[in-house]
Amino acid sequence: MNTYDLIFKKREGEKLEHEELKFLIDGFIEEKIPQYQMSAFLMAVYFKGMTPEELSDFTNIMVKSGEEIDLNDIGGITVDKHSTGGVGDGVSLSLAPLAASLGLVVPMMSGRGLGHTGGTLDKLESIPGYRIDITRNSFKDQLRKVGVAIIGQTKNIAPADKKMYSLRDVTATVDSIPLIAASIMSKKLAEGSSGLVLDVKTGSGAFMRKTEDAKKLAKAMLEIGRYNNRKMAAVISDMNQPLGRSIGNANEIKQAVEIMSGKGPDDITEITVVLAGMMLQLSGRQKDLKTAQKAALANLNNGAALKKFGDMIEAQGGDRKVCSNPDEVLKQPEYSAEVKSPENGYIEAMDTRKVGLTALSLGAGRERVIDKIDHSAGIEVFKKISDKVEAGETLAVLSSSTVKNMEEAKDMYINSLKITKDKVKSPELIYDIIN
Amino acid sequence: MNTYDLIFKKREGEKLEHEELKFLIDGFIEEKIPQYQMSAFLMAVYFKGMTPEELSDFTNIMVKSGEEIDLNDIGGITVDKHSTGGVGDGVSLSLAPLAASLGLVVPMMSGRGLGHTGGTLDKLESIPGYRIDITRNSFKDQLRKVGVAIIGQTKNIAPADKKMYSLRDVTATVDSIPLIAASIMSKKLAEGSSGLVLDVKTGSGAFMRKTEDAKKLAKAMLEIGRYNNRKMAAVISDMNQPLGRSIGNANEIKQAVEIMSGKGPDDITEITVVLAGMMLQLSGRQKDLKTAQKAALANLNNGAALKKFGDMIEAQGGDRKVCSNPDEVLKQPEYSAEVKSPENGYIEAMDTRKVGLTALSLGAGRERVIDKIDHSAGIEVFKKISDKVEAGETLAVLSSSTVKNMEEAKDMYINSLKITKDKVKSPELIYDIIN
Repeated sequence: MNTYDLIFKKREGEKLEHEELKFLIDGFIEEKIPQYQMSAFLMAVYFKGMTPEELSDFTNIMVKSGEEIDLNDIGGITVDKHSTGGVGDGVSLSLAPLAASLGLVVPMMSGRGLGHTGGTLDKLESIPGYRIDITRNSFKDQLRKVGVAIIGQTKNIAPADKKMYSLRDVTATVDSIPLIAASIMSKKLAEGSSGLVLDVKTGSGAFMRKTEDAKKLAKAMLEIGRYNNRKMAAVISDMNQPLGRSIGNANEIKQAVEIMSGKGPDDITEITVVLAGMMLQLSGRQKDLKTAQKAALANLNNGAALKKFGDMIEAQGGDRKVCSNPDEVLKQPEYSAEVKSPENGYIEAMDTRKVGLTALSLGAGRERVIDKIDHSAGIEVFKKISDKVEAGETLAVLSSSTVKNMEEAKDMYINSLKITKDKVKSPELIYDIIN
Repeated sequence: MNTYDLIFKKREGEKLEHEELKFLIDGFIEEKIPQYQMSAFLMAVYFKGMTPEELSDFTNIMVKSGEEIDLNDIGGITVDKHSTGGVGDGVSLSLAPLAASLGLVVPMMSGRGLGHTGGTLDKLESIPGYRIDITRNSFKDQLRKVGVAIIGQTKNIAPADKKMYSLRDVTATVDSIPLIAASIMSKKLAEGSSGLVLDVKTGSGAFMRKTEDAKKLAKAMLEIGRYNNRKMAAVISDMNQPLGRSIGNANEIKQAVEIMSGKGPDDITEITVVLAGMMLQLSGRQKDLKTAQKAALANLNNGAALKKFGDMIEAQGGDRKVCSNPDEVLKQPEYSAEVKSPENGYIEAMDTRKVGLTALSLGAGRERVIDKIDHSAGIEVFKKISDKVEAGETLAVLSSSTVKNMEEAKDMYINSLKITKDKVKSPELIYDIIN
């Protein structure tokens, strides 16, 4: 077997066998296969794709390149959720404790924000004391006792993916649906939950701008998961405007507390309930989705989810007072500024990626992996698509611990909006549920 | 400008501008752009191609990466020929002196054999004393005095192509028509002749197996040449069987002497005459192709071409007695063996690549660039496509300075043939002339 032949084979659109994929990935990790051959192979995959079986194999080999977390000794049904990311997507913060309050075990390993999207870990670190890097044993103990933990990915998870992603990142092979699916699923499979619900975002703030692509990605990930014996379901949901009202870190924690107090914005509450229902259904504990969603909604309103959230925070070293008095616990921004509407009309569209980059410019995100985050920075969005606005009315409030970029950020925010004189329909929140 | 964007742009099938191509190629040579980005770019070119203008630009930038030979001070009209290579394609040996005998200046820089194909330099080095590595000044002097020189390419010709070819060779991006065209033409343009006739081979012994591909390659090369102000013409010719009778090195020199004595095999004589006619036409010295070919044929028969061949050999340090008494001058093989026909019938097809590999196995070629050649080794082909053969009749004679591989070579040769009971038509020699 030699690398040239495998690149050639893929270039000709043929399916690679397990042994061939293993030769490639193992050789790449061991640096027997040079990066220039791997990048040519990845570009050939970009053009020629992979069959579902081939892609599942490919992903499985990436899983085996590192540590696989065994959650069989936890007891209980482990179900996780993964979102492809967006702006204001703090769903995990309330969803994970909500699902745990419904009797599931939620072993969530999350990531950090980069570019226009935020990350669950950054948001949780707004809570003083919260530790995302607990030991494997503490993680499992917490799952047994509390039923939920949100921690960072360990370095040993799917190192082949990490290495391959770095190469894709500089060779224009990131936005390949099979490669995205393999990258996400290699990590999720290694994390060992028996069920996984995917929230695949689509729209102006999502990586998949087109709904068609989001569906293809969801389908590819479902196939990989099922081929590897996981229970899988997916929702295709809207990211043509920010989710909820808050974009940032501390402010998204505060919003999560509101959601778990039955007082959150409608859209983010709805998707939280839908996803919790799907997780419950996937676990087999509740067959009917509607009934499952009712149970989920009840636990947002009766305080059960919020109690779990507090338990989780406490177990991970954080200050659970954030649940009762978030403003006291969370760092408050030093500067804020209102963005006013320049005209009368209706909000027709939001360039959601640009809204995310506005939050980044305020300090709420990072451009490079090594950048630091200002947890108090962010945006409160008061007007969304289809909302009527009057000239001079407040559209959003921007916050930051520095005043430096404020004017520029206001311009960016205004420029991300399209205002029209005619009435506009609100976009659907959920396009499809695939299970 | 950054490399990622250029890979992305090509991946999306867009045309790159001059400055962008220059950034890529210069960065690649200076090793500012890593090989893994270049290989991803090349794979994207494989799938998306280049526009004629873009490809011409790309080639021109590769030319500028190294030395460009200025032949303007030679006086006279410089015209060169390039063949894409095949088996028994010793045309240059007689064509170059023939064209010079017709009043053209032929500054030929040739290559060595590799794999199943032979190389003009190896053939010429069968002549004792012949030097292929003369100085630039001696080369020019010889062109002024003799009108023809066949030498090796200097190392400084199109180094970007050399570097890029090494990368393509290990990343399955060699067989891309635009990249092949750019590679060939970057060297030919740097060599500075004002006119160039291309002999693009097609068939079982050629790099372009399909005539359609050969035409595409010819077209791409013509466009590159014309865009760079060269006079260009091309012939698409057959390589479904070896050209002429001799395959090897010393034996092809002997055959060239026969061609220039008016006693060569029909096919190789014909294509030599056609190409010489095209070179003459391209130079503007003769407008009518038929008249030009008549003049060429005359100079094969009247000894004018052979005299030029002798003058060239002498000027380059070789023994010109090879023209009058080749067997005395050329090294003779120590062993030879006849390949007999196993049955009665007609030769229907020859796997010409395999015939070339048979010659290689006898020592006439090289597998790797560093291998040494046995100049006396080779094949004399007595029966070609459409010829009637009887069981036991000699199909070919194999020669070598070692007996080691003889039996294996006989089997290889037999296995390269397809013999049928029915009469067969001979393939056409010339499929198309493009000018």
